Amino acid sequence: MKIIGEKINGTRKSIQEAIIQRNVDLIRALAVQQSEAGAAWLDVNAGTHPDREPEDLAWLIDTIQAEVAIPLCLDSSSPETLAAGLAKTRLTPMINSINGDDKKLESILPLVAKHHCPVIALAMDEKEIPATSESRVAVVDKIITESRKAGVPDENLYIDPLVMTISTNAQSGIIFLESIRQIKKKYPEVHFTAGLSNISFGLPARSFINRSLLTLAIEAGLDSAICNPLDSELIATIHSTELVLGRDDYCLNYIKWYRSRSLK
Amino acid sequence: MKIIGEKINGTRKSIQEAIIQRNVDLIRALAVQQSEAGAAWLDVNAGTHPDREPEDLAWLIDTIQAEVAIPLCLDSSSPETLAAGLAKTRLTPMINSINGDDKKLESILPLVAKHHCPVIALAMDEKEIPATSESRVAVVDKIITESRKAGVPDENLYIDPLVMTISTNAQSGIIFLESIRQIKKKYPEVHFTAGLSNISFGLPARSFINRSLLTLAIEAGLDSAICNPLDSELIATIHSTELVLGRDDYCLNYIKWYRSRSLK
Repeated sequence: MKIIGEKINGTRKSIQEAIIQRNVDLIRALAVQQSEAGAAWLDVNAGTHPDREPEDLAWLIDTIQAEVAIPLCLDSSSPETLAAGLAKTRLTPMINSINGDDKKLESILPLVAKHHCPVIALAMDEKEIPATSESRVAVVDKIITESRKAGVPDENLYIDPLVMTISTNAQSGIIFLESIRQIKKKYPEVHFTAGLSNISFGLPARSFINRSLLTLAIEAGLDSAICNPLDSELIATIHSTELVLGRDDYCLNYIKWYRSRSLK
Repeated sequence: MKIIGEKINGTRKSIQEAIIQRNVDLIRALAVQQSEAGAAWLDVNAGTHPDREPEDLAWLIDTIQAEVAIPLCLDSSSPETLAAGLAKTRLTPMINSINGDDKKLESILPLVAKHHCPVIALAMDEKEIPATSESRVAVVDKIITESRKAGVPDENLYIDPLVMTISTNAQSGIIFLESIRQIKKKYPEVHFTAGLSNISFGLPARSFINRSLLTLAIEAGLDSAICNPLDSELIATIHSTELVLGRDDYCLNYIKWYRSRSLK
């Protein structure tokens, strides 16, 4: 289970301010903390100002790379911003994201293919998230048809089946889990990722709901997540679930995690 | 998901002392606490002294029944003790337990049939726990052949597939989960129960491991557990897992649980 650290995200107010003020210390602290907590990639989102985004992303990348050597996950809907980011990154980054929208596929897949990047693919068309697992698989069918044409190997795809809120639809968890199972069966080489916390939007004691979904999703096939690597209960849940699922011989990873945690 | 409250167990030193000293207050407090926390049954184990056990169990039953009206789960390996308990209980109790041992089946199944009790059936022969899920299913085959002959309906069986320690066998979790799935497929009317905490024996931060197993087991079909109903994180995990699995329309049970918890 790999973690994409979510904390450097310019759609959050404090990060947007840090970007505008060129607050190097705050950005580097978030990069170091997430890296030390075991993130495999750091998501980097420069916010949504079209005029500033390419330049702001480039600054974020330079700022982080001067401090830690960790692959980044370039998070933008703009092909221009992604191209600017790709020109800056020293280690091959992940691209966040494509979806079933033709324009996205046409504009971003060539970048993904050229740079041999892993890429997050959302199981949605343009702006609509399909209601059923079958219709999400259909979007993935379309994406994979196009990604293969572009020369992107299936194992570079990180499919995000999209977690919806359970308070508005009791089947949201099941649809998400079933989407993973169906896509995994059809495309055994692809990876999966997700932001899990949407599931509990509007409900109390959210972390219990997020962790139950995480445990079930790991069994279904989720092998990465966009989350906060500093959330110690979420990380504990990952390690304990992999242990229970027989994926941790001699409990070595679990005990290693526990010891590193005790040292803090 | 129903809970069999585990706390009145005479194999634990403090409870054994309370039984010997006829400490009514302590036993009643444990009964009230577990009942208020939502237990469906209270396990009642009078300890392992053959000379004292029937009388001690009768005292426990009288003591509890004078305070709370909740079904008990008579926990003994002795048919005589179980018969003594059955003569005392006002509400139909659960019997804990039978297994694939011929002597157990012959001596206890007639009591179960006569009193129309639910009964816990351990997926083991005499004293040996089979190593694989297939061989545990084979024991359950034998038990169900005999329970049907005795006139016990399948829905009165609570199969315990038995959780083994993961630190000595990385497949212990998988074997347990797979046993539930296979037995459920073959005998759709039976219920399941388990004591989960064995999984984490010898490891640190045990509650994370126990909760991951619980979440996966609920998805597999576990519909009751022998546990501590006062363990608020375990109970939260039950509610959040049922919510995520689409078994809680409008989040009503989850919110009801959360509110009752906030009131404490």
